[in-house]
Amino acid sequence: MITIYGMRASGNCYKLQLLLDQLDREYRWVEVDSAHGATRTPEYLAKNPNGKVPLLQLEDGRLLAESDAILCYLAEGTPFLPDDRWLRAQALQWLFFEQYSHEPYIAVARFIRGWLPAEHPRQADVPGLLQRGAQALAVMEQHLQQHDWFVGGHYGIADIALYAYTHCAGDGGFDLAAYPAISAWLERVRRQPGHTPMQR
Amino acid sequence: MITIYGMRASGNCYKLQLLLDQLDREYRWVEVDSAHGATRTPEYLAKNPNGKVPLLQLEDGRLLAESDAILCYLAEGTPFLPDDRWLRAQALQWLFFEQYSHEPYIAVARFIRGWLPAEHPRQADVPGLLQRGAQALAVMEQHLQQHDWFVGGHYGIADIALYAYTHCAGDGGFDLAAYPAISAWLERVRRQPGHTPMQR
Repeated sequence: MITIYGMRASGNCYKLQLLLDQLDREYRWVEVDSAHGATRTPEYLAKNPNGKVPLLQLEDGRLLAESDAILCYLAEGTPFLPDDRWLRAQALQWLFFEQYSHEPYIAVARFIRGWLPAEHPRQADVPGLLQRGAQALAVMEQHLQQHDWFVGGHYGIADIALYAYTHCAGDGGFDLAAYPAISAWLERVRRQPGHTPMQR
Repeated sequence: MITIYGMRASGNCYKLQLLLDQLDREYRWVEVDSAHGATRTPEYLAKNPNGKVPLLQLEDGRLLAESDAILCYLAEGTPFLPDDRWLRAQALQWLFFEQYSHEPYIAVARFIRGWLPAEHPRQADVPGLLQRGAQALAVMEQHLQQHDWFVGGHYGIADIALYAYTHCAGDGGFDLAAYPAISAWLERVRRQPGHTPMQR
């Protein structure tokens, strides 16, 4: 059975839980409290030198890091990642958008507000993160005004990757009511068969 | 013929130049000065709502953003991206590492030092960027102490993506002499057939 090293409250880790549950695939989950240093121990760094969760371990011990790379690997050959070359390219485009233009603002605002004390100096970063995160949400809103899903007219890993931190963006101070197309898409994602909520 | 909208001095854009030259593939290059607002015009935002370069346009007008997604698309079916499922997963792992843990520090330090005035408030970010970028270089150094290339024993798009901003990391204030395995790998990359330097 495959193993996921992850932190349940992390959106990057939740992506894998959501896909695996929707694939109805069995897996072992090892909880790693990355918010309190558990990804910086020598034992964990031997598995992932970049010191991050999630991490996939195959039955034979091989290891794969980076949530969106793991999503692609697990979704290969399933309806969640199309075979068509152009559709795959678009899925990757949205996955890289998520990791570069979305997660560093929306997930980080949530982390600072949810995990760091009110007097922590990083609280001062939140207004800038809200501004940059709003740009990412505006890009998503524009796309979703014209499309039900991110790629090819079907629910897939681009939706899963973007759902992970968008649905809990309110935790970081974003007001999702300002984005009606995103709000309708979030509800469509929640209605997909096998959907499981994030443990928060 | 395909078109690349890009800025020559950008490592993210140089990735595509390097791959296309090594594939000996013809392309049209449209220079877009993203450092001076050319990706924020209504005309450009109509092509890429996220307002970034590079951007690929196919002969039929279809558009694809995100440098590493474009690399994957262009490398499909070539020796630069293996068909094997596990090797592809590892290539994606390194591409996401590049965009999340490497580029936001190493490329941004270079941008601040090379494009912003000495009195710009963002100059204060440089020490933190140097620290986080050094973590990424350490992860690369550790891998390259044991492997000639990032994936599967062959030069490919993971090497191209990581070369783009690593080889000019000195521009941002990093001392590459402290990373002998990286330095040897940079030299191996430079010796690959069809290698073309970045215009700086």
